[in-house]
Amino acid sequence: MLDIKTTKTTTPKELPDKDDPLKFGTIFTDHMFIMDYEEGKGWHDARIIPYQPISLEPSAMVFHYGQEMFEGLKAYKTEDGRILLFRPHMNAKRTNNTCRRLCIPEIPEEDFVQAIKELVKIDKAWIPTKEGTSLYIRPFIIATDPFLGVRPSHTYKFMIILSPVGPYYPEGLNPVKIWIEDEYVRAVKGGIGEAKAGGNYVASLKAQIKAYEEGYSQVLWLDGVHRKYIEEVGAMNIFFKINNVVVTPKLNGSILPGVTRDSVIKMCNHWGIKVEERLISIDEVYNAHKDGLLEEVFGTGTAAVISPVGHLRWENHIMQVEDGGIGPLSQKLYNTLTGIQLGKIEDVYNWTVEVE
Amino acid sequence: MLDIKTTKTTTPKELPDKDDPLKFGTIFTDHMFIMDYEEGKGWHDARIIPYQPISLEPSAMVFHYGQEMFEGLKAYKTEDGRILLFRPHMNAKRTNNTCRRLCIPEIPEEDFVQAIKELVKIDKAWIPTKEGTSLYIRPFIIATDPFLGVRPSHTYKFMIILSPVGPYYPEGLNPVKIWIEDEYVRAVKGGIGEAKAGGNYVASLKAQIKAYEEGYSQVLWLDGVHRKYIEEVGAMNIFFKINNVVVTPKLNGSILPGVTRDSVIKMCNHWGIKVEERLISIDEVYNAHKDGLLEEVFGTGTAAVISPVGHLRWENHIMQVEDGGIGPLSQKLYNTLTGIQLGKIEDVYNWTVEVE
Repeated sequence: MLDIKTTKTTTPKELPDKDDPLKFGTIFTDHMFIMDYEEGKGWHDARIIPYQPISLEPSAMVFHYGQEMFEGLKAYKTEDGRILLFRPHMNAKRTNNTCRRLCIPEIPEEDFVQAIKELVKIDKAWIPTKEGTSLYIRPFIIATDPFLGVRPSHTYKFMIILSPVGPYYPEGLNPVKIWIEDEYVRAVKGGIGEAKAGGNYVASLKAQIKAYEEGYSQVLWLDGVHRKYIEEVGAMNIFFKINNVVVTPKLNGSILPGVTRDSVIKMCNHWGIKVEERLISIDEVYNAHKDGLLEEVFGTGTAAVISPVGHLRWENHIMQVEDGGIGPLSQKLYNTLTGIQLGKIEDVYNWTVEVE
Repeated sequence: MLDIKTTKTTTPKELPDKDDPLKFGTIFTDHMFIMDYEEGKGWHDARIIPYQPISLEPSAMVFHYGQEMFEGLKAYKTEDGRILLFRPHMNAKRTNNTCRRLCIPEIPEEDFVQAIKELVKIDKAWIPTKEGTSLYIRPFIIATDPFLGVRPSHTYKFMIILSPVGPYYPEGLNPVKIWIEDEYVRAVKGGIGEAKAGGNYVASLKAQIKAYEEGYSQVLWLDGVHRKYIEEVGAMNIFFKINNVVVTPKLNGSILPGVTRDSVIKMCNHWGIKVEERLISIDEVYNAHKDGLLEEVFGTGTAAVISPVGHLRWENHIMQVEDGGIGPLSQKLYNTLTGIQLGKIEDVYNWTVEVE
């Protein structure tokens, strides 16, 4: 159990207007959480302080060798005024998986969740309640040794910041168009693809810009070895409903193990819908589409929840998924998941955690 | 031509003692260079200021999505008191190659070199002169938008810091032991391996620790697709002298194009030594060693210059290179390269640039 020292702001900011569209990741709340790590001393000095800039040496390792990780989850306010987190222990576990891969010291799961709860509680007035909005929680760790040799840092900062957000895609639940990338590669087995590391995101930018310029919202990555098996979308995992079976790439070491991905698989299982986690090639998707068997495609992620895919482009082939609209399974998953997150639907999976 | 505004420190630090071993990357000089970038405005406000911490929003993109790049080069003081940089335009070019891959705005080559020259001149008293020492120059760029969406930042800082250094390996020119990694992968074609990006370095830490624990200084990476072709060592490129021919992996998109690598190839060509840039598999190296044809192995890099390799370990095979000592070609390359860098040997290649 962390002993978190709290210093409240004396100059609270104005809350966003309740009609503010809350563009993703632009507004931050009044407070933040910080905890320091020092070799030999461990994680220490847990504190909540007013949201403020941080000061680092220009030689701090995070600026040079990318030793940084992040997580993302959300807090929701229910109609009866309770505050719910969605599966925060999954993020705590994934944090530690990422930390092991990046040689960052781990954080006890309970401390991770406690820090989130206390911070969210202090800034609970910032949780928006309009349809499609939530309080996005961004835990992250950065390496701070002022040292230019390449080795794991001996000092770190673990921080949590909060941002009231609207939908990740300005389109909301509307279908997105996805570009299947065949030149650039996001990650490869043996690399850091399954870690939530900054390095994976910077690697994705070039293809993302190419996709934008062609009118596509996101990039779908193929594997780096064969360049044919589907991996993930930059900010989401991906699912295909083919001939009544839901298929998603198996976690293979280069794919991020999404919390929403896991939730969707469990919901489908619960509903008796067949789900296969396996290798799926772009040819299989192409052929399924050609044969009229590609019923739905959707992305899953904390930021976007469920994101129906209306179009896929692979080389010169443009595949419209059914009528390019929102498929019934996508809609049902979205309704159920957001219903559980908002406390409107019974949480039979025991996924939500209340901030008391 | 940049108009660099200079503010000198009023509290200069004490210079390191001339017998200080100058552990790599730990001591920084009195000043640093900064220039800001803003979309629509370009790079602006070039300035040299006292070395000091930088203050960033916790939401600054560099902390989350790894949009950061760095370079490394060195300044030397000659016996007659001149200051020489080694091939700084190569670093300027590589900076821009990296920037293009990471969607960071480019910096005019001449501005890059001018900024280095002016900063080195101001802190020239910090250039050490003891055998094996130099002033290490670390230019780097970080993304600073306070924004949590994944896209290229619209604002950046380009900074240069300086550090008087001794040899990168405490062993100096002594042979290092290299671990050939067969589980983890550094980079793959289509990824960011040829960019000088933080993400490549964090990806290398886990294997580096494994190697350290087994008594090896550095990791030699195999390609991520076939897991058999040799790529590079984390902080160096790698060369093999096999049966009188010098072989080094061809630049293939996942290997860093080293300045020292390029210099070594040009020196060998100049000396009439046959050099092949091509695919080289670990089996070929293993067989060459078995047949007594593996004459020398050495790494090349700005930090280490030339680093002879005495032992290689691949799976359970330990290969001692010749007598495990410094090969004659490694020694000659080291002597010539450092001789040119220090202005002791005629620079027939026109590599050095004087800071006047």
